[in-house]
Parts: sequence; C-alpha cells; structure tokens
Amino acid sequence: MTSRSEPGRASIVGTGLIGGSLGLALRARGWTVTGTDSDPTTAKRALELGALDKIGHDSDASVTFIATPVAATVTEARRALTRSQAGAVVTDVAGVKEAVSAQIDHPAFVGGHPMAGSEQVGLDGADPDLFVGATWVLTPTASTDAAAYAMVRQVVGSLGAEVVSLSPHQHDTLVAVVSHVPHLTAATLMNLADRASDQHAALLRLAAGGFRDMTRVAAGHPGIWPDICAANSDAIVSTLDELVVELTAVRERVSSGDRGWLLQVLESAALARRSLPGAAVRPERLAELRVPVPDRPGVLAEITTLAGTLGVNISDLEIAHSAEGERGVLVLVVAADSAHVLQEGLADRGYHSTRRGLE
Amino acid sequence: MTSRSEPGRASIVGTGLIGGSLGLALRARGWTVTGTDSDPTTAKRALELGALDKIGHDSDASVTFIATPVAATVTEARRALTRSQAGAVVTDVAGVKEAVSAQIDHPAFVGGHPMAGSEQVGLDGADPDLFVGATWVLTPTASTDAAAYAMVRQVVGSLGAEVVSLSPHQHDTLVAVVSHVPHLTAATLMNLADRASDQHAALLRLAAGGFRDMTRVAAGHPGIWPDICAANSDAIVSTLDELVVELTAVRERVSSGDRGWLLQVLESAALARRSLPGAAVRPERLAELRVPVPDRPGVLAEITTLAGTLGVNISDLEIAHSAEGERGVLVLVVAADSAHVLQEGLADRGYHSTRRGLE
Repeated sequence: MTSRSEPGRASIVGTGLIGGSLGLALRARGWTVTGTDSDPTTAKRALELGALDKIGHDSDASVTFIATPVAATVTEARRALTRSQAGAVVTDVAGVKEAVSAQIDHPAFVGGHPMAGSEQVGLDGADPDLFVGATWVLTPTASTDAAAYAMVRQVVGSLGAEVVSLSPHQHDTLVAVVSHVPHLTAATLMNLADRASDQHAALLRLAAGGFRDMTRVAAGHPGIWPDICAANSDAIVSTLDELVVELTAVRERVSSGDRGWLLQVLESAALARRSLPGAAVRPERLAELRVPVPDRPGVLAEITTLAGTLGVNISDLEIAHSAEGERGVLVLVVAADSAHVLQEGLADRGYHSTRRGLE
Repeated sequence: MTSRSEPGRASIVGTGLIGGSLGLALRARGWTVTGTDSDPTTAKRALELGALDKIGHDSDASVTFIATPVAATVTEARRALTRSQAGAVVTDVAGVKEAVSAQIDHPAFVGGHPMAGSEQVGLDGADPDLFVGATWVLTPTASTDAAAYAMVRQVVGSLGAEVVSLSPHQHDTLVAVVSHVPHLTAATLMNLADRASDQHAALLRLAAGGFRDMTRVAAGHPGIWPDICAANSDAIVSTLDELVVELTAVRERVSSGDRGWLLQVLESAALARRSLPGAAVRPERLAELRVPVPDRPGVLAEITTLAGTLGVNISDLEIAHSAEGERGVLVLVVAADSAHVLQEGLADRGYHSTRRGLE
C-alpha cells in the first residue's frame, strides 16, 4: 500500500497566479516551499507574500510544480526531472497537455491542469483557496508511474481540488470547447463592440451585466494565448468551425423568423446552463472498488482516464502491490451511485472489480 | 420652467423582475404604486412583497410603466394612454424600441429601456436598487412632448439610473451588439458544450469560471427571445454576419499559426474590456448649456439623442418656455469636460448654446 505522503518539501517554478496560489495553499498545509520565477522581482514578491519559504530550486523536493506559461513548460519540467531525487515527482499546470506530454516521456512526470484562475492575472491575485472545489485534470500516460500519479493526485486533492483524469488528447479536445474557443469568442465580441463604439460613443454605456459577464475573460492576459492557440490548434479550429456553423444557423432562423426553432435552442441552452455542475461536492455515500491489475505501466492511466471519460469522480485512490510484485490491486473510492458505471466500463476492458459499500 | 414632479401616483403594468423592482424603488421614494400583471398570482405576490400599494389600474397616475414582455408592450401602452389624464405620461421598458415606437405615435409616450436585470428572472429577483448606476435608455421621437420626456427622465433619474437618449433605431442597432448577439452566442456556446458532453461526460466538470461567466446569460428566460429576435431581426442578422466573419478570420489565423495577429486581437480586446465604463459616476465638475430652441415637436428628441450619440451624459435637463410660447430654452447640465463636444455638435445642427460653469 502506498503511504499517504505527509507534507514535506515542494518546489514551484513560476510564481504567477497559479504558482503563487499553490505556494500559499501548500504552506498553509505545512509544506516547505521553495520557488523561482523568470522574473526575480516576482519571486521576491512571492516570498514577501508568504507564497514561498525560500527562493531557489530545492533538489530534495518530493514534488515540483511547473507553473510557467506553456512555452516554458517542457524545458522547465525536464530541468526539474534532472534535478529530482528518486521517488520525487514533477507535475505542471499548462492549459494544453498533448504538446507537453508528447515531449516529456518520463515515469515521474504527471501532466496536470487546474481549472481555476480568474481574469486577474499574476501573483497579486494569488489565493490559497483558489483550488478549493475546482476541477484539476491530471493526464497520466502509458509512461506514467502509478505511484507518481497517486502522489500528485493526493497532493492536489489535499488542496481542495477534485481530480479528473483524462488522456492528454481528451483534455485538449474538451478545453477547446469550454475554454479556448469561449475565450476567443469573448475577445471577438469585445472587439466588435469596441469598433461599433467608434461610430456610437454611447454603445459601451449600454453594456450591462450580461455583456460584462460574457467578455470578462477577455480582460485576461493576452500574452499566453498565441502559445495556447498554437499548441491546441486542431481542436480550436474544429470547434470554431462548429461554432460558425451553429451561429450561421441561428442567423438564418432569425432572418426567416423561425420562432419555434429559436425558442428550442434557447430553452435547451437555459436548461444546460442551469444544470451545469457547481463546485464538486463529496457524495454522501461512497463505494470502494478493488481492481486487480497487472503491475505494468499504462494500466493506471487507462483506468483513471476511463473513469474521467465516463464522468465518474474518483474520491480516493490507492495502489496495493501484491507480495510477488507482478500484480497489484488498485483501490478506487467513488460515489456509490456511480460505482456500477465504472464497474461496467472496467468489465468492457477486461478488468474484474469487486465492490463494497463505505459508510 | 417645468416643475420638478414630486413623488405622486404611479402605475405599473407587468410586475416581473423589472416591474417589481420599479414598484419597490418608487415606493421607497414615496410614490403610491398601483399595478397589475397578466398573471393574478404574480400581482398578488407583488403586493405581498411591497412592490405595490394596490392591485389594479390607476387612471390618476402621473406616470405609467409598461413592464410586460415586448409582445404585449404596444397593446398595453395604448390602453394606458387611453386611460391617462392630460399631463400624465406612459413609458415602457421593452428591449427593442423601433417596433414599439413605430406603433405608438403619441406625445405622452416616451420609449425606454433600463439596461439592468440579471439572469434571475421574475418577481423574486426584484430589487429596489436594480437601477442604481444603471444606464436607462430613453428613445424620444419627433412626436414626443418635451414635458413628457423631461418628466420620465426625472423619475427614472431619481431611481439612480443614468439616462442616455438615443433614437429607437440607434438603440436597436447598439443592443444587437451588446446584448442580443452576445446572448445568442452564449446560448450557442452552451449548446455546443452540452452536445460535446454527451460524448465526454467529464466535459462540463471542466467548465471553470470563464465558461460560467460567458454562458450565465443563457440561463435566463428563453421565452422572451423569439419576440426580441423578431422585433430586431435586421440588426441581429447583420451583427451575426460580422461576428461570423470575425470568428472565421480567427479560425484562419489559428490554423496558419499567425501569432502576431492573434496577439494583437487579444490585446485590443483586453484593453477594450478593461476600459469598459463602470457604473456611471457623477462628474466632479458640471457645466450648464442653455440652448434657445423653437417650441416645436422633435427638437427635444433631436438634441437629447445627439448627446447620446456623442457619448455626452446629460446629468440634468429642464425646459424653460418663453412668455411668447414660440421659443423656449433647453437647459442641459453635462460634465464640464464634455460640454464643448455637445456645443460643437449643436452648432453643426444650427443650435447656438451658451455655457456657464457650475460649482
């Protein structure tokens, strides 16, 4: 059984909004945090704000977070892996995962992406509670060591985040829909309004709450987006294509006065928006699934990303190794009412699991 | 000089979010408010919530607000005009103005649209402070009586709103850009994500703050939108055309990896979003413009909508009639630093104005 890692020593590369929030959150939980930033002033400020204990690299850190802009993620993750001791893990927070994972093929690396943040960019927005209730995607691959995955999972879970595991490709496809294309659309709407306001000075005074909400993300840090667009261009292009098709359909129906169709579109959107899951809530009743698995790379990634794909939230995860070392048992704690979904999915892939309820 | 109308008797037709908020706001300022709703239960609830003093129509009301959905606005406004005594005014709150104005050609009618509200629909979201700091568009036309305009202006101003006057056509063009098309886009993005979540159950768990902000308006009341789309279809169609052109350009640049272009688009959007005017603030220094005007219909609409188009905020307005009755003086109070913009605009249209500073 893997031991629960106690707060120990953590390292952070890049102390902006996410890195700074990580530092505050980890230190609040008893970790000793060392960190750097490409801008020495920012690192110094992180120290002053209490997000770091010390500036620098800690080669004895048991976990290193790479929280730089995506363009620097691969280089910094490789450096951190070179510095790290055996048993230590490296994870990142970049908003695109396939391009990163493809370049870092290392058992101690676990790709990650906390779905948190705000239009407020930079260290001054740092908040130790930024990750409470947030979804944190981990993207284990066939190379990822199971113990490394379990450790990152536990650390980010201890910060209040709910972990969802997806393959790097799945992650990138999904964030194109819920983050990248919405962001580009917000920027486009903002520019359209800004241009129209050149002719009508009153226009922006008519921008009420709805428009403000819709364009809020566009106030964020423009500098990170060209890299995100480059790293996830396929998914962004195909989602933009879908959006253009849909908006063109709306345009046709507005033009032809098809009230019934428009009402249906708006009703289904309202229903979907109202059903959007809120911050994750620990389910009341839990079940434990024990899955005997061969002790080889890729099994953990396969099973955890299967759960992510099926929408089954893993509340806790442990890896028990058998004495022989060739097989192990993966212990998954999930909501009682979704356990059967995961059991069926596992069975389809040839994994037999046993279940017991937890109080 | 028109006398400042003291709180008196007001009537409200339609006691949903806007009508209910109006009732609360007016009663808090000493008005006696009578109102109705097509749903008797809603009217009764408005009475219980303190948004009304009495259910019914008050033919002695000095101002009547038509706060129904847009489909009923014209019918109800005409009824209210028939009921009203001489000197009383009728205004509405519909989100489209050209279709309404074209059908109500009456000196005592002043079209209006408070740019306030929220995704929370209906009476239970009613708030006496809903209009504080909000922009309230008035759309006087050549038929509008100057005293009727001045009275509506003063009443909605007393609720904390900042009045912008625009022609009905200008209003509709501008709200297509800052409200109608953003709403349709939010609904489309929400539906796109919802459909994608059929394949990937995890997708909606990845919807973080930005996506939630962008789609919040889509949770609103779908039922009102087919009428809005019908009543403002030309402006909505042409704005959707522009949006599709722009999104297609973004798609091409993402596809070709044009980082420089993308950065520029995102930077200009960020700048524009950060510059979005907040809740209107009373300027520190005011100036008074006195404009001698012929005492004929349409002059007031021309001058106030000119100010709206130029982005000049009129803080106060009075109409002084000369003894002879053929000419009057329009007294406009504006921010000192924008007075010259309005003076020049007036001069271009043949109106000579004199200016004096106010402390």
